[in-house]
Amino acid sequence: MKTSQFFISTLKEAPQDAELKSHQLMVRAGYVKRLSSGLYTWMPIGLRVLRKIENIIREEMNASGAVELLMPAIQPAELWQETGRWQQFGPQMLKINDRHENEFCFGPTHEEVITDIARKELNSYKQLPINFYQIQTKFRDEIRPRFGVMRAREFLMKDAYSFHANENCLQKMYELMFETYNRIFSRIGLQFRSVAADSGAIGGDASHEFHVLADSGEDVIAYSDQSEYAANIEKASTVFKKASKENKVPNEKVHTPEITTIEALQEFFKIDTQSILKAVVFNHDDELVICFVPGNREINLVKLEKIIGSNRFRVAKDEELKKHGLIPGFIGPEGNEHIRKLFDHSIIEMENMVCGANEEHYHFTNFQSINTEKFVDITNVLEGDVSPDESGKLKFCRGIEVGHIFQLGKKYSESMQASILNEEGKSQTMTMGCYGIGVSRIVAAAIEQNNDENGMILPKSIAPFELIIVPIGYHKNDKVRAQANKIYADLLESGIDVILDDRDARPGIMFAESDLVGIPNRLVIGEKSLNENKVEFKSRSESSPEMINISDLVQFIKSKI
Amino acid sequence: MKTSQFFISTLKEAPQDAELKSHQLMVRAGYVKRLSSGLYTWMPIGLRVLRKIENIIREEMNASGAVELLMPAIQPAELWQETGRWQQFGPQMLKINDRHENEFCFGPTHEEVITDIARKELNSYKQLPINFYQIQTKFRDEIRPRFGVMRAREFLMKDAYSFHANENCLQKMYELMFETYNRIFSRIGLQFRSVAADSGAIGGDASHEFHVLADSGEDVIAYSDQSEYAANIEKASTVFKKASKENKVPNEKVHTPEITTIEALQEFFKIDTQSILKAVVFNHDDELVICFVPGNREINLVKLEKIIGSNRFRVAKDEELKKHGLIPGFIGPEGNEHIRKLFDHSIIEMENMVCGANEEHYHFTNFQSINTEKFVDITNVLEGDVSPDESGKLKFCRGIEVGHIFQLGKKYSESMQASILNEEGKSQTMTMGCYGIGVSRIVAAAIEQNNDENGMILPKSIAPFELIIVPIGYHKNDKVRAQANKIYADLLESGIDVILDDRDARPGIMFAESDLVGIPNRLVIGEKSLNENKVEFKSRSESSPEMINISDLVQFIKSKI
Repeated sequence: MKTSQFFISTLKEAPQDAELKSHQLMVRAGYVKRLSSGLYTWMPIGLRVLRKIENIIREEMNASGAVELLMPAIQPAELWQETGRWQQFGPQMLKINDRHENEFCFGPTHEEVITDIARKELNSYKQLPINFYQIQTKFRDEIRPRFGVMRAREFLMKDAYSFHANENCLQKMYELMFETYNRIFSRIGLQFRSVAADSGAIGGDASHEFHVLADSGEDVIAYSDQSEYAANIEKASTVFKKASKENKVPNEKVHTPEITTIEALQEFFKIDTQSILKAVVFNHDDELVICFVPGNREINLVKLEKIIGSNRFRVAKDEELKKHGLIPGFIGPEGNEHIRKLFDHSIIEMENMVCGANEEHYHFTNFQSINTEKFVDITNVLEGDVSPDESGKLKFCRGIEVGHIFQLGKKYSESMQASILNEEGKSQTMTMGCYGIGVSRIVAAAIEQNNDENGMILPKSIAPFELIIVPIGYHKNDKVRAQANKIYADLLESGIDVILDDRDARPGIMFAESDLVGIPNRLVIGEKSLNENKVEFKSRSESSPEMINISDLVQFIKSKI
Repeated sequence: MKTSQFFISTLKEAPQDAELKSHQLMVRAGYVKRLSSGLYTWMPIGLRVLRKIENIIREEMNASGAVELLMPAIQPAELWQETGRWQQFGPQMLKINDRHENEFCFGPTHEEVITDIARKELNSYKQLPINFYQIQTKFRDEIRPRFGVMRAREFLMKDAYSFHANENCLQKMYELMFETYNRIFSRIGLQFRSVAADSGAIGGDASHEFHVLADSGEDVIAYSDQSEYAANIEKASTVFKKASKENKVPNEKVHTPEITTIEALQEFFKIDTQSILKAVVFNHDDELVICFVPGNREINLVKLEKIIGSNRFRVAKDEELKKHGLIPGFIGPEGNEHIRKLFDHSIIEMENMVCGANEEHYHFTNFQSINTEKFVDITNVLEGDVSPDESGKLKFCRGIEVGHIFQLGKKYSESMQASILNEEGKSQTMTMGCYGIGVSRIVAAAIEQNNDENGMILPKSIAPFELIIVPIGYHKNDKVRAQANKIYADLLESGIDVILDDRDARPGIMFAESDLVGIPNRLVIGEKSLNENKVEFKSRSESSPEMINISDLVQFIKSKI
């Protein structure tokens, strides 16, 4: 490619609303162009990167025996009504009426469509397992699209769906996809981590997320400093040892006038927040649930949702507490037997704690461990907690979710009656897995992980070009132009993905642009070095250039790429 | 690819609603699977064909210097309001409200979006010409989707848009795209014809359509039997020579009681319909327009729309005729000066005609040529008419439109104020062209053109596989299996796009399926021929097979493909 025949349009300034480095750089480098909130055009240079990622994913999925198809973006409401998700999915789903007032949506995901295909096309265990995938544009109507393509409304996704006669077969495919994802992200050249994940709205049993590690990531990952354990903070767990109770002191009711917050109690009793028992009350369908947790821990709403078995809950208002006989600021573990109580499992190691006395302006001190067998896990882990495999302690890092694999089980196949005849000739519901990759999001994540003050430093597997040739004086110096054209032709012929900057621009501008747009290798062709039959090579990730003999050039570049 | 690792699912019966052969075969061969009206999933085998077409188009567009990008499918209403097409486009446009009640559409085409990009990104004549293209899913809410993917609602399209500083530059790009389209359709292996076209709703000056020739095509093409002239019937024209008037006979008013139709007049006067002057009256915004045409010609509504300058007209009702003093069935060219009259140019060669006398139950006979200089072209040409270049006579054939190129001029750039600074530093509106190809429609058109009673006969450039290996007894005969696997591996290594049918199926079923799905070459591996170190090769388009020595096989296959 020659720059004059391509289209690169860079900007000096990032847009004001771009918070993330990747968003700033993608706009400045002309990778994407905003059309409307959460809608981006992939400009030619950005599209090259997107396509390279797409190709790596396609090759690795094919290598793992997955079969590509392409489902429509527009999906009829009826299928979603069968699984109940037409209502459940909420306002992220872009609903549409056609000219005949039939209801459709712009597919945010394709479980319903593929299960419809499967129940029509798959009849026998002999056809299983099968893993269908597509690389396709999805739409989710985010309430606040942000971070450029990282959280866009229209985005490119690879989604795969596998069908099985039994759990064991699903498990094998799940492991194969786990390996395939590792291969894909390694081949792209990302630093990433697979973590146990909460499976959220998609449902099912086991699931893992794949995160590109970056300080700006929206997700927090807890990992063991000694073992392989890693999990999304939403799912991460730890284990607690029962308190020794060696230092038992008799409890005492203390007058604590107007002392209603953890901070005020900490100040009043001069103790750590982890020795104070916090009570958080939720209203679930007009019934109250009191959650007791140590003062230093946050409630994990995802875990709480699983225990309550519903997402229809919110923090209760003071009036609601009073109506049920609770005294805000002084709620304690004893009494109030008419109200459901949940005790976080971390309480097991608390001793001599401060807690409410269920009496206005009174707390207990030196309250001992709560007498309940029903400890549950409803809090986030903290850095320093023991890894749940009891090997090492938990540390935190941040990540950008780029992949997610799920064991769906029979969630969709049951509600949509997708069954096959098994070996005994009996009808049997299929078991399913699904496997997603955010293709367009990977571009942003890769940039978020790899940049410096000059621009992007993209892994060579996905850089828009592997190499740029920058001739100094292409339009004025015949020797430079002839040599640049020859080297360009030679490298092209050797299969190098090379661009020749044949514009009449100042070298400084050409260098700055090639750094900004993330081209990993640069060849400078100038008259002076040509006189010595040399050209200057510089890798984007190294600080100083090297001089290369023109006769060795193609071989040298091949070894570098 | 081995069949066991792929997914092929064929049907014995075509769906009842499938009228076209291509629709029947695509469903039977499992190329596509219907999801809903006008919505199809491309199943793995069909997707392979679609992708091969896509790749040929991409390669040829790139070779012609076009630059690929990818615009969002979802487009904001504001842009379409700027050009006035938000209302004009009509119910084919799928309109959508997002969660904030902002208006969007699922893009049926992208002139507005690309012009918005161009006005932001292009500032100088130095950046021109530029030709952007994308290969992308479009949606048009057809009132009656039919013929499978031929007239689907969601479909894959290649759309390109070029920007220029002047008409001359546009003209050159138009010619380049004309050649590129010829290359693309030739390389795919289609019999096609480029024809002058009416540019319809997209607007602009010149346009050409590319039609795959097929008897089932929806479009009629008129072409000269001696010259290069070819045009869509909507646009095709002819020339007429003034009648000699040698046989002039005085006209005569004849009593024609209740004789009001062309057929009745033909019977009554014993003359050809082409000697009868037909009057068709339209109501345009409550004003009448009388169109006079020979009895044997049809009015061309596209041509009429251009002359009237509006599409708000319809055939007038009898009451409306009477209200304006016209007598239905007896309307003639003389008198009624208060009503607009249009005379088709074919009338120039009529003589001794029969026409209405504007008096109930009376016609004229031997009426001579109408005395008007204002002949206009408002009729369809007929087979046998003189080619407009006066070289040869017109013949008709039918075609399926798969490509369309337009000189848009300034239609969009003016209304959206897309301008650049020209060489003199002055602001100047850009000139545009646009170039579309119906990618998914090509699959159907290719099948429509190439099939027999056994199934599809696809051109090798787009067949799902170039070659199928059918072993006889793969699961029972070790020798056959070993040899089949070896030949498969050898051919794969030689770059042949080969599939090995490794299922435990009867040969007849395997042969029938490979014919149905359009694999152009077949290799049969059976024990008997293996004993002579031979395998059987058969081309889909030839009736009898040939025996090939295994040692020459790779070379032989390469020569065939």
